[in-house]
Amino acid sequence: MGAWGAALERSDLLARGKAKDVYGTNDPAVLWLEYRDDLTAFDGTKKGVRPGKGRLVAAISGYFLSYLNRHGVRTHFLGQPAPRVHLVRRLVMLPLEVVVRFVVAGSLIKRLGLPEGTPLGRPIVEFYYKRDDLGDPLLTEAHIEALGLLAPETLDALRREAIRIGELLRAHAAEAGLLLVDAKFEFGRDDGGALVLGDEISPETCRFWDRETKDILDKDRFRRDLGDVLDGYRAVAERFGLAALADGDGGGA
Amino acid sequence: MGAWGAALERSDLLARGKAKDVYGTNDPAVLWLEYRDDLTAFDGTKKGVRPGKGRLVAAISGYFLSYLNRHGVRTHFLGQPAPRVHLVRRLVMLPLEVVVRFVVAGSLIKRLGLPEGTPLGRPIVEFYYKRDDLGDPLLTEAHIEALGLLAPETLDALRREAIRIGELLRAHAAEAGLLLVDAKFEFGRDDGGALVLGDEISPETCRFWDRETKDILDKDRFRRDLGDVLDGYRAVAERFGLAALADGDGGGA
Repeated sequence: MGAWGAALERSDLLARGKAKDVYGTNDPAVLWLEYRDDLTAFDGTKKGVRPGKGRLVAAISGYFLSYLNRHGVRTHFLGQPAPRVHLVRRLVMLPLEVVVRFVVAGSLIKRLGLPEGTPLGRPIVEFYYKRDDLGDPLLTEAHIEALGLLAPETLDALRREAIRIGELLRAHAAEAGLLLVDAKFEFGRDDGGALVLGDEISPETCRFWDRETKDILDKDRFRRDLGDVLDGYRAVAERFGLAALADGDGGGA
Repeated sequence: MGAWGAALERSDLLARGKAKDVYGTNDPAVLWLEYRDDLTAFDGTKKGVRPGKGRLVAAISGYFLSYLNRHGVRTHFLGQPAPRVHLVRRLVMLPLEVVVRFVVAGSLIKRLGLPEGTPLGRPIVEFYYKRDDLGDPLLTEAHIEALGLLAPETLDALRREAIRIGELLRAHAAEAGLLLVDAKFEFGRDDGGALVLGDEISPETCRFWDRETKDILDKDRFRRDLGDVLDGYRAVAERFGLAALADGDGGGA
């Protein structure tokens, strides 16, 4: 991170997401993401602020994205010059969320009529349309084709890549005593048109349960009022040896 | 219809659907469907009764199913021994609704973010899980596979058959001055395991618009309070020369 962090400076605010601010830098190919302490759920209808959350999520996400970089996945992550900051490659994002599911949870309970915790024989990949105004609806291949969002072969490539990344994360989580239940990915294209993993990988975008106790350690704690959300995120961080970062002193960047 | 109608008698009530009652007959391979005057929408949360509706819908549905039988589609329809009654082959129904869409309407407006009436370049086929308790959710191929509902090749066959039937109905409707916007099909398997079209084909399961004026002539009149629903259904019936039946005197079988 040193090389990037030293050379680059934050410039204009380009966009304000639900939990991150996006700034430019003095390198037009690089963005500066600042993780905030805001918590939102249910399309932004449930909101909260938890000091220290941004720092903790940035640490976990930086850890996972570095892990994926080292394991042959193209991600946007370049470095972390400050606790709440990721330097990332600028991508043209696809308007899709790609969800890989290994175990029944969340919306899948009501869609399939199966109990939470039911293991899936093979991972399920779902595509959601990133449109807050529409409530981020589920899309089938036929819908994606009708919208002209992606060529069928690109969709196949995206599905394969999402499963590969999901399997990498699941195996790594298992070694740390965690069950990766599902994971949400966002992809973009770099200048050369290659698909690159963007956004974040954290307990805000993935469901992590304790492998033994099945304790919920992810944002479902916030969605479902299951106790302090940060206790869960800290437990995830500690499993990956990020205890020092997890014990950070709160909201400062 | 004479041969079947004369030989068969109604026996026990086997099931009561939202708009039809299902009875057995003295032939175990044949069911007796009675179309009722009940109207329901939004998973049964909006309800009504409109005398004469069952008779009119049975006439239209019998007309379309006969039409499909004559054009090489395997349907369950055997005959119509009385105005509100269809004799049909007993099938083991698939727990799916298969929807073919030619034009954006209904749930597709909010899913794709496109205005009602937008023509689709190619028909979209959707599968919904027939589970009232779950709200009949949309399923992707991955969901259907995870539930073990259908083999992938059967799903492909179902999609092709749904498009073929939809195209047949769309062309026939166009000749009658109607635009077929979308159509919902339910399929089952006969004793030999072949896929057979069941249920009904009517303005309660398909959206029909006047081709020129774009007047809505289907159940959206009831869903959206667009005037007397029967005026729409009568208009559809009249376009296919079913005026005599359409002018029926109300609820009697």
